[in-house]
Amino acid sequence: MKIETIRHSLSHVLAYAVQKLYPGVKFGIGPAIENGFYYDFEFIEADQRGLKRGITRIAPEDLPKIEEKMREIIKKNLEFRKKNLGIKETEELFRNQPYKLELIKELEKSGEKEVSTYQVGQFLDLCKGPHVKSTLQFHSGQAKEIIDSFKLTKIAGAYWRGNEKNPMLTRIYGVAFKTKEELKDYLRKEEEAEKRDHRILGQKLELFSFDEEVGTGLPLWHPRGAILRKIIEDYLYKELILQGYQWIVSPHIGKLDLWKTSGHWDLYRENMYSPIKIDEEEYMLKPMNCPFHVKIYNSKIRSYKELPLYFAELGTVYRYEKSGVLHGLVRVRGFTQDDAHIFCTPDQISQELIKLLKAGFKIIKTFGFKDFDIYLSTRPEKYAGTEKDWQKAENSLKYVVKKLKLKYQIDPGGGVFYGPKIDIKIKDSLGRPWQCTTIQVDFNLPERFNMNYIDKKGRKHRPIMIHRALLGSIERFIGVLLEHYGGALPLWLSPVQIWIIPVGSRHQKYAKEVGSKMLDAGCRIEVKDENETVSKKIWGGELQKIPYLLVVGDKELKDKSVRVRERGKGDLGAVKLNKFLEKIIKLRDGKGF
Amino acid sequence: MKIETIRHSLSHVLAYAVQKLYPGVKFGIGPAIENGFYYDFEFIEADQRGLKRGITRIAPEDLPKIEEKMREIIKKNLEFRKKNLGIKETEELFRNQPYKLELIKELEKSGEKEVSTYQVGQFLDLCKGPHVKSTLQFHSGQAKEIIDSFKLTKIAGAYWRGNEKNPMLTRIYGVAFKTKEELKDYLRKEEEAEKRDHRILGQKLELFSFDEEVGTGLPLWHPRGAILRKIIEDYLYKELILQGYQWIVSPHIGKLDLWKTSGHWDLYRENMYSPIKIDEEEYMLKPMNCPFHVKIYNSKIRSYKELPLYFAELGTVYRYEKSGVLHGLVRVRGFTQDDAHIFCTPDQISQELIKLLKAGFKIIKTFGFKDFDIYLSTRPEKYAGTEKDWQKAENSLKYVVKKLKLKYQIDPGGGVFYGPKIDIKIKDSLGRPWQCTTIQVDFNLPERFNMNYIDKKGRKHRPIMIHRALLGSIERFIGVLLEHYGGALPLWLSPVQIWIIPVGSRHQKYAKEVGSKMLDAGCRIEVKDENETVSKKIWGGELQKIPYLLVVGDKELKDKSVRVRERGKGDLGAVKLNKFLEKIIKLRDGKGF
Repeated sequence: MKIETIRHSLSHVLAYAVQKLYPGVKFGIGPAIENGFYYDFEFIEADQRGLKRGITRIAPEDLPKIEEKMREIIKKNLEFRKKNLGIKETEELFRNQPYKLELIKELEKSGEKEVSTYQVGQFLDLCKGPHVKSTLQFHSGQAKEIIDSFKLTKIAGAYWRGNEKNPMLTRIYGVAFKTKEELKDYLRKEEEAEKRDHRILGQKLELFSFDEEVGTGLPLWHPRGAILRKIIEDYLYKELILQGYQWIVSPHIGKLDLWKTSGHWDLYRENMYSPIKIDEEEYMLKPMNCPFHVKIYNSKIRSYKELPLYFAELGTVYRYEKSGVLHGLVRVRGFTQDDAHIFCTPDQISQELIKLLKAGFKIIKTFGFKDFDIYLSTRPEKYAGTEKDWQKAENSLKYVVKKLKLKYQIDPGGGVFYGPKIDIKIKDSLGRPWQCTTIQVDFNLPERFNMNYIDKKGRKHRPIMIHRALLGSIERFIGVLLEHYGGALPLWLSPVQIWIIPVGSRHQKYAKEVGSKMLDAGCRIEVKDENETVSKKIWGGELQKIPYLLVVGDKELKDKSVRVRERGKGDLGAVKLNKFLEKIIKLRDGKGF
Repeated sequence: MKIETIRHSLSHVLAYAVQKLYPGVKFGIGPAIENGFYYDFEFIEADQRGLKRGITRIAPEDLPKIEEKMREIIKKNLEFRKKNLGIKETEELFRNQPYKLELIKELEKSGEKEVSTYQVGQFLDLCKGPHVKSTLQFHSGQAKEIIDSFKLTKIAGAYWRGNEKNPMLTRIYGVAFKTKEELKDYLRKEEEAEKRDHRILGQKLELFSFDEEVGTGLPLWHPRGAILRKIIEDYLYKELILQGYQWIVSPHIGKLDLWKTSGHWDLYRENMYSPIKIDEEEYMLKPMNCPFHVKIYNSKIRSYKELPLYFAELGTVYRYEKSGVLHGLVRVRGFTQDDAHIFCTPDQISQELIKLLKAGFKIIKTFGFKDFDIYLSTRPEKYAGTEKDWQKAENSLKYVVKKLKLKYQIDPGGGVFYGPKIDIKIKDSLGRPWQCTTIQVDFNLPERFNMNYIDKKGRKHRPIMIHRALLGSIERFIGVLLEHYGGALPLWLSPVQIWIIPVGSRHQKYAKEVGSKMLDAGCRIEVKDENETVSKKIWGGELQKIPYLLVVGDKELKDKSVRVRERGKGDLGAVKLNKFLEKIIKLRDGKGF
């Protein structure tokens, strides 16, 4: 028995249970979906004659009752009976079900003579099946198991047939698995993922917010979030400068002509916003930084001696996304790319890709990620450049992943029109993959912008351009970091690293002393005031996932010590202030930040 | 004798000289201007019968010849004779001068019967005067001085009557003073200012560029310029965090509604660009960061305990400027404000302003500026808030500048509609003032955005909002810095601090050794390759205003030393590498960065 069949049958059982509990309910549709099933209902209260009296609001609190009714039904071991009925007969049977009638009418229009239905107990549904034989025979050997291996999970509004001009129905979701262990495992992971939802963490840790009047998908970075950005950006800067990158800064708008030359206007327009008019000229909010980097390359004659040339920028770009797909920080309308372009000779591609990948992994690992899925995408049907160029670049990419002994998958034809690419998805602590790094070879822009370098003999050549983003977008990456760590960011990334908590007002002075020593050691600290109880402050600090809480009272004041609570470890007891400082300085320097 | 009269008379002498040298020339107009005068000409070559044969191109090389002719004329001590002539008679006299005829026609139209003219030698001009008596009697006691106290300076194109639909005339500029010492002084300063022109320095030092296809007034920051920005931004960040500022980051666009609520749409629209449409909503490129800061303030309930609250951002804003007023980095269309907002109780204003001014001066002085002009601008005719509020805020501002013993001028009615302000112009090394810092009290936005804080007793109050930018705009400030230092930025601001120059290929390895020690000490260095002569590299380093050039040859290699050339001081001889490192580390740490 396929799990989809079980899930589908459960949706019928759900509908039957709802029919029993809410007479007069109208039915939409109820399919199996990933991990479970749903059914759409219109909850109309009706009297015994079937007359409408009002609408019942269903709340999450009602789900256990419905679930209970489903179990009752299942225990009766009711048969699922398939019947093919004539159109007219079906219409008569569904005369009180306007949504079903609409579906029957459509079947009639398309020339169907018969309608396939399934009956379970008193519940009849239009349905092609297949279904389980009976409510207790879900599959061999695990007959009764189903009672404990499903769960109704949530309620949502859903327009009839997904069209917002239609009535809003109430959708009840359930999850179902073959065994109760699988259900338990799924629910545990869901709960874990929910706790790690970066949107909730972002609010709880006061990192960022969204505001309807500011705009959709445009995050506002609060002080702690802005510090986190700054830590990440400064780390990247330091690391990339050491690797020989040159930093540049480009504007957020550029003339429409620029995007025509680059090809974005032709090929990427649907992701760009409408033009801004300035002095009879049209300007575009930038969706990409590349044309500006090309312009800086082109601002003087370049010699082969300068290649490879690395330009890096933290460039904030704006791209259109449908409001429905926006999701916290991981899908926004404005984000900051850790963008870079490598300009090199064709001969340098392999060597540059090796350097890039090595450096990229080093940087991503620094943030605590260990597992990656690597995809190599090859020439699509429509492409710029010559087949020979593509072959050469694809070979370089393959050579490089093999040379570095990386496991990878080929995505045939998945390259961008301007060149092949390597994408890296990082896996978080729950094993979920997140697309971050992309490395793309580009034959197109050097051509379109007539880029050149002069070789030893004074002859002009086209350079190769490699686009690469390591973290992808700072916004998205912070979202991923938060979900990876469940908000408990490592010390070096924590916006506030240490809270100093005085027990009473007479310890305030010493708390400040401790604070200023921590500040001198380069720590991000907060000294809490004495107006709350110590336990409340500790609780607050734990909620905020502060790595170290240092409590100072009489004993600590006398001993020049601090009582240390380490995140995840709890109370470590009193530690001499100097000892603790040594430890912090060691942690600060040890990781190389 | 007014200097303006002398300058005006010199413009006639210029026209007379040109008439002598270029028969057939057509005359536009020739007024006195600041520091000198100009005259507009159409250089038509004519044969002896006055027939047009072509157009003569006048080049800067022609100016000495014209100047010589002017001196000849002056030495003849020719009289300036005023004559009032009838319209017809004047028209007849100017029959070959189409531009003059146009002016006469207009006089006629406006009902004039007579035209005032001045004659000097053979040159007759339409002119109301006044003029000097004769070419050698410029003013008493300095009769002949004029010969050496003027100078023709440049040639430019100028549309007749400033209208681009009219023909382009050739404008010859001159400068003139009462004494030759004044002229000399002026020319020296001009030359100095020209050498310090940040647009030229920006190119020479490879800091930034503009590109027609990217857009007008939108700088592209090249690697060295981007490093300079980063140094300044990091310094500000570090300094402001220590002062208790909280960093935030906001998007570059926001819904039109936001700007309607803030009042910018009503009062600042002409500086804003046209709306961008996203999903049926209009968004604006931000001209200001304030509404976003307010939104973050409003994202939770604020207590009096949190005030004063400081939000700072390096926010890149976009404002419309006419293309004619754009000037290098000091007047652009997109720039990054070192913006901050202080939210405080009314009682905290004075204390906050004192802190702000003290911290502001400290930061600006760090960049090497010592002199300031301070303006306090008071309530304009149209204003938001109550008269009482204004009085209180103005009194606070006055109290503060007095308390800090600052010299200031009152700009009556010069405040912004939303509150009084203090502006600080910094003076550069040539004594030129540059508007940078502004500190503005705002009664308007807290009202418009319904901002509140809760006092001790749980009652709601409006906070006061203070806007402040210290450097004003990073772009503009870098422009000012470049002009102030003539490009020779202090060590801590220099994008490249040290060049290491190997004499030959056998010194390359040692040069790299020296380089890596400097890198470890946190220096920004470049090791030059050995393909050019040492003297050429030294010359290049001096052009690029590199603070230290370290030459390493046989002797240095043997002694583990470097031959130091310090910018502005020249060759300091050989210094042991360790000694030099000590010096650099001392310099690095000494200034507190």
